[in-house]
Amino acid sequence: MDIIKPRTLSGFMELLPAKQARFERMMEILRNTYASYGFAPLDTPVIEDAQILLAKGGGETEKQIYRFQKGDSDLALRFDLTVPLAKYVALHCNDLAFPFRRYQISKVYRGERAQRGRFREFYQADIDIIGDGKLDIINEAEIPAIIYKVFRGFGLSRFQIRVNNRKILSGFYAMLELSDKSGDIMRTVDKLDKIGAEKVRGILIADCGLTETQADEILKFIAITGSNDEVLSALEGYAGRNELFDQGLVELKAVCSNLAAFGVPEANFAVDLTIARGLDYYTGTVYETTLLDHPEIGSVCSGGRYDNLAGYYIDKQLPGVGISIGLTRLFYVLDEQGLLNPELPSAPADALVLPMTAEPGPAIALAETLRSTGLRVQLYSEQKKFKQKMAYADKLAVPFAVLLGEDEIAEGMCSVKNMVTGQQVKLSPADAAVYIRQALEANNGPIILEK
Amino acid sequence: MDIIKPRTLSGFMELLPAKQARFERMMEILRNTYASYGFAPLDTPVIEDAQILLAKGGGETEKQIYRFQKGDSDLALRFDLTVPLAKYVALHCNDLAFPFRRYQISKVYRGERAQRGRFREFYQADIDIIGDGKLDIINEAEIPAIIYKVFRGFGLSRFQIRVNNRKILSGFYAMLELSDKSGDIMRTVDKLDKIGAEKVRGILIADCGLTETQADEILKFIAITGSNDEVLSALEGYAGRNELFDQGLVELKAVCSNLAAFGVPEANFAVDLTIARGLDYYTGTVYETTLLDHPEIGSVCSGGRYDNLAGYYIDKQLPGVGISIGLTRLFYVLDEQGLLNPELPSAPADALVLPMTAEPGPAIALAETLRSTGLRVQLYSEQKKFKQKMAYADKLAVPFAVLLGEDEIAEGMCSVKNMVTGQQVKLSPADAAVYIRQALEANNGPIILEK
Repeated sequence: MDIIKPRTLSGFMELLPAKQARFERMMEILRNTYASYGFAPLDTPVIEDAQILLAKGGGETEKQIYRFQKGDSDLALRFDLTVPLAKYVALHCNDLAFPFRRYQISKVYRGERAQRGRFREFYQADIDIIGDGKLDIINEAEIPAIIYKVFRGFGLSRFQIRVNNRKILSGFYAMLELSDKSGDIMRTVDKLDKIGAEKVRGILIADCGLTETQADEILKFIAITGSNDEVLSALEGYAGRNELFDQGLVELKAVCSNLAAFGVPEANFAVDLTIARGLDYYTGTVYETTLLDHPEIGSVCSGGRYDNLAGYYIDKQLPGVGISIGLTRLFYVLDEQGLLNPELPSAPADALVLPMTAEPGPAIALAETLRSTGLRVQLYSEQKKFKQKMAYADKLAVPFAVLLGEDEIAEGMCSVKNMVTGQQVKLSPADAAVYIRQALEANNGPIILEK
Repeated sequence: MDIIKPRTLSGFMELLPAKQARFERMMEILRNTYASYGFAPLDTPVIEDAQILLAKGGGETEKQIYRFQKGDSDLALRFDLTVPLAKYVALHCNDLAFPFRRYQISKVYRGERAQRGRFREFYQADIDIIGDGKLDIINEAEIPAIIYKVFRGFGLSRFQIRVNNRKILSGFYAMLELSDKSGDIMRTVDKLDKIGAEKVRGILIADCGLTETQADEILKFIAITGSNDEVLSALEGYAGRNELFDQGLVELKAVCSNLAAFGVPEANFAVDLTIARGLDYYTGTVYETTLLDHPEIGSVCSGGRYDNLAGYYIDKQLPGVGISIGLTRLFYVLDEQGLLNPELPSAPADALVLPMTAEPGPAIALAETLRSTGLRVQLYSEQKKFKQKMAYADKLAVPFAVLLGEDEIAEGMCSVKNMVTGQQVKLSPADAAVYIRQALEANNGPIILEK
């Protein structure tokens, strides 16, 4: 038979079992945390009608999208989870209760140029709250508060959720009579972290057509830093000159005070006037999240408030707020930085039952007994020598091997070997289950270990 | 703005939240059960190199596959999880411990003609055990034993895992000197359930070129029924005439006796000599699973033993055994039959906190307290009238509303309203959490209710 060399496409993450176990654990934390705040899980198709996915059209999206014909159909793979959500809400709005809160942790597709750390297939882990006509400002604090819980659940503490409000920015530009250029300005300011203040100033003058005074006013404004109270105080200095600005300031203050009420420590959120988010549809609060020890990674979780989710599909005002974690990239980066906790058990089983006799019945029964207590138990069924059985247990990195020979069977016992310490004890199956569980619980650390 | 009518492609399942909650619960049972037997979760890309996916080539697969170009790449969407597994094992075989046990619950794609109950995007929930060179027969009993656990976990008891062995069939055909026609014969016999014995006989004679005597021998053979012991005894009557047959009989007897050792009741598995599975790569034990009250659905879970998983990709003998649940179709059918338990809570939250005051702080704190006990708690943040708040709780079908007004805040209490009974009690937050949890546990039935 001709052999075709197996390969996985570049830009597609495919993990070995031990790493996959960590990735699954992160997904479980996401699911549980999102669910604990009353978000409903949603699952939309990977393939949609291309016309629908591209309703907004234009730009990078159209270039990157995977689009193809099948029969007469013009199909495409989703490139984010927001557009499918908009379609879903528009299609099913009479059946949904509003505010509609959903989470979705699914793969999306972008045919970007492949490069290290860039993926063409990657998981996004999104939450959104969609209102019918209106949506209270509290939601804009709850969303980042949930992200705080998620990151803490991962084991991270050195992260910061940076918050801004686009009304403040738009209002400020209006004060400078630059409203017509606010889109260009925001996109330019968004690059501040990457290219620095001087280059931003240059682009503002040369490309956006600002005067030097206007550019300097903008740089002065986005240079406002300090504690959240200090930044908010500095913003008060601009108040009373533009209605939109004032409204944005009220919202930003509400978000900050509610974030505290939701239990997010000030160390983990910061008002940051440089955050604008490049996307046109954000209209109020915007978020980015950075790892404090790895600012070079950029934002690992972003989102914000939008006034109209589904205007392309339905004549109904559906304001919302949402945030998205780029999970595949985050995982890749954490792994590259060596931050995945090496001590965390990653074997597919808590215990491996090794029969030492030919007749499998007693080992099958023992495995079922251990399993019935909630343990993950693998039965080793191959007729191999003891040494090979132990080599398998080692390669699997299973924390416990449970040996069952003639003696143990006769006594109604089993021998439990701790594969790390080498210690071996003979116990009844019930005691073995307790013994193993206690050891596992003592070794249940976080996924991520910050250095 | 021009509005594009939202739609979801036909053949793609997209569920409303209450149904999605049930689907998620089935996936959770699958994950937990598969994991409890020491299977590692795997996640392979949806898109693969088309040449690799089609290495085997030919037939329906090639017609149904979603295949497209992106840049210079010839890409395709996976049409099952077995071919990607073969690629994965071939690619990573030096890093895997054998026997390699993995589960994967993922979407696959087949551009079939759309019709009721047929899906173009659907979940498969697969487990496979891959050996390096050899694989013990015990695995062939463990696989259906796990499926038994899954189905019982769903709430089903009226199902039957039907087991056969292709060596018995091949050996029997060899006795009749029909080995060269065994593929055609097996594919014909596989249709017995659908077209009946007479038509099978007709095809065997007219299309496969059998004599009437040969066709009658085959029909007599596949008509062997009764208890598992009876069928196995009848098979003994053919023993000693063909080595392959005898080997298959030893295997089938081992599978039956080990299935009993794994705790599968005889009512839930049956030796069935008509099962052949149409696919060429099964070489030994084969399985199909039927719902006893809905035989018209056909097999909802099928699989078997194969001698060489990855021969297209690697020059290494990798025998295995696996089984696959067509989850999307199973869910669709159970729903159509009205078997989804209507009593099972499907709301995205266990409790909805309804603030009755303008200041959100106390309600935020109450929600966090309830959440910290493990409950899923949604905070209702909108400034609406009481009636509208309760209408939202009703539409969400949330089991408990927790009301927090001036009085409750002053007393450090909250009012818990059972949304089904209408009963309302005033409790401390800690007592409220216990009260809600107890009520939920009392109402935690199965997903499927057989009639």
